[in-house]
Amino acid sequence: MADSGSPERVLIAFHQEMPASMEEHIRSKFSNAEVTIHIALPGVPIPAEVYQNATILVTFIHLPELKDAKNIKLIHTLSAGLDHLLYHPILRDTQIPISTSSGIHGPPIAEWTVMNWLVSSRKYTQSYEAQKAHVWEKQVAYMQGMHDQVGKKVGILGYGSIGRQIARVSQALGMTVHAYTASPRETPESRRDTGYIVPGTGDPDGSIPASWHHGLDRESVRSFLALGLDHLVISLPLTPQTTGLLGAEEFAILSENCHHHATKPYLTNISRGKVIDQKALIEALNSGMLGGAALDVTDPEPLPADDALWDTPKVQISPHISSLGMEYFPRSLDILKLNMGRMTKGEPLVNAYYRGKGY
Amino acid sequence: MADSGSPERVLIAFHQEMPASMEEHIRSKFSNAEVTIHIALPGVPIPAEVYQNATILVTFIHLPELKDAKNIKLIHTLSAGLDHLLYHPILRDTQIPISTSSGIHGPPIAEWTVMNWLVSSRKYTQSYEAQKAHVWEKQVAYMQGMHDQVGKKVGILGYGSIGRQIARVSQALGMTVHAYTASPRETPESRRDTGYIVPGTGDPDGSIPASWHHGLDRESVRSFLALGLDHLVISLPLTPQTTGLLGAEEFAILSENCHHHATKPYLTNISRGKVIDQKALIEALNSGMLGGAALDVTDPEPLPADDALWDTPKVQISPHISSLGMEYFPRSLDILKLNMGRMTKGEPLVNAYYRGKGY
Repeated sequence: MADSGSPERVLIAFHQEMPASMEEHIRSKFSNAEVTIHIALPGVPIPAEVYQNATILVTFIHLPELKDAKNIKLIHTLSAGLDHLLYHPILRDTQIPISTSSGIHGPPIAEWTVMNWLVSSRKYTQSYEAQKAHVWEKQVAYMQGMHDQVGKKVGILGYGSIGRQIARVSQALGMTVHAYTASPRETPESRRDTGYIVPGTGDPDGSIPASWHHGLDRESVRSFLALGLDHLVISLPLTPQTTGLLGAEEFAILSENCHHHATKPYLTNISRGKVIDQKALIEALNSGMLGGAALDVTDPEPLPADDALWDTPKVQISPHISSLGMEYFPRSLDILKLNMGRMTKGEPLVNAYYRGKGY
Repeated sequence: MADSGSPERVLIAFHQEMPASMEEHIRSKFSNAEVTIHIALPGVPIPAEVYQNATILVTFIHLPELKDAKNIKLIHTLSAGLDHLLYHPILRDTQIPISTSSGIHGPPIAEWTVMNWLVSSRKYTQSYEAQKAHVWEKQVAYMQGMHDQVGKKVGILGYGSIGRQIARVSQALGMTVHAYTASPRETPESRRDTGYIVPGTGDPDGSIPASWHHGLDRESVRSFLALGLDHLVISLPLTPQTTGLLGAEEFAILSENCHHHATKPYLTNISRGKVIDQKALIEALNSGMLGGAALDVTDPEPLPADDALWDTPKVQISPHISSLGMEYFPRSLDILKLNMGRMTKGEPLVNAYYRGKGY
């Protein structure tokens, strides 16, 4: 993409100090390019000449003015989506190719999900508290209600890269997977994952689900919830249609149709807090209609200290951290590296953002 | 096996009170047999006439005298092994077919193992403590050191039904599996799991490991530990050869050869405490040579309240509960049911105990 002989000039715009090891990692990954790492702390704009020099821009939130983007041939975002940048002139008024980091969230969020399931079903916090107290408890203290995931049915609302990695681990645990998508996926082709996939993970062909379901209307969702699910995982984007999608009636449908020998349905939310009617969730957990919930997202965030959700029985809350990890940045740059190679060869980009599609 | 028309008389000898739901489950599972459930509390022998009436005996620890075993055509043990019964006349001096519950421990122990890995790598207890304090922490509080399992190498010492289910979940997480067995497994046939397998779990064909290793000597184990493992799982039986198998030098070999970007090797022990030199383990964790340990077994058990192990950094202890769960008893009886069918048809038993083999 650069003239032969002239190396790419990669500008990495980052919003906080970067560990030296990360900087080293980046420079060795792009050893054929000139790499500039620019730390732009909140409120401090990136100087025009820094943008002007770049041929490739890597960014979370920073974009140049149109006049400073003349040399930029590719923009790679460190986020999975572009919602926060949709109205920027670079997106609206240029055709500069853009790729996203969609796909890299599967492994960490799937691990967070399965960890929470097991912590709940295997009474982890009981042994954790006993260890703190130096108490070796009798086995009988663990017998009541401890159970495993074999034969459980998990329903995944939103079968993207995250849902697919959850499906992969679920299947290994001996579970059955049921997928729900907005649009129908009736052909093998339509069931494929066409975005970036972390090697050795996910469900590239969409071969894991025992059944596929779809729809944008509440009735379709409710029939899905009536499948007899032991787990419901919410990995949908927040849209006007998904806001408040799951409330008292949906929890009742889930509960009435679940016939597991040990527990009522367990809900996992890794999407956005507002997809759930949180007051109804608290009631469903208090009443025992639901068997537990893992929530990495709440409504609002941060969750106020006096919110009833904190002490609701069988709820496990974490502060929107399920996608974090040391692998995040290196994986995102793997996508960029792949795309730099593809551009050189004139091939289509992985995770290309198509203007006008709206996400 | 019974004369045509006369139902089997199944005696279930159990050592503690049984929930009504379990009794119901048993009676419906063996609805064609006459089922007697005999609760023999500690120190109270089972009356001779109870044994004399049975054609099939299901037991953990109780066995009849020879003279009371005349009608018994099959004994099924609720434990995986028979170490505790080896010298009983029924084993030494009769040919009554015996089957074990080997194979049913895979799912719960694999879940316990993976749960501990993820709790450690994803900082679960930090969010648990923050939730108790009603504190929504900033993301930056989680960034340091949080990482995932993709690309990690797990070495499994003892590739039986438990190791195989750990392998299955590890592979789904994106990890590479290396298997270690006492005897060589060079042919596809020798790599198969020939015992009972919980449907939908395990590695029936032995196709998951990227490499196989074997040996009974310390040098072979040490070469295995030098593979660059991020996880070492101990699922060996305790024998004179495995007692104290892993000590200071072995931990050093593990540590020196591990080159993960985030952490030093993590040790999981689901075997017996005495396989490890526990003092050396404490030192290896204190010095940072090892990155963490999950221990369901210790030396001794119960672990005394003043033992240094309780507060050793990055150790997660549970009181020998990893195999427990509501599925234990029903799964064991699945094996019996399978074998009752096989005996009727004259087929070889699943999980048959061969006298003279010693385990």
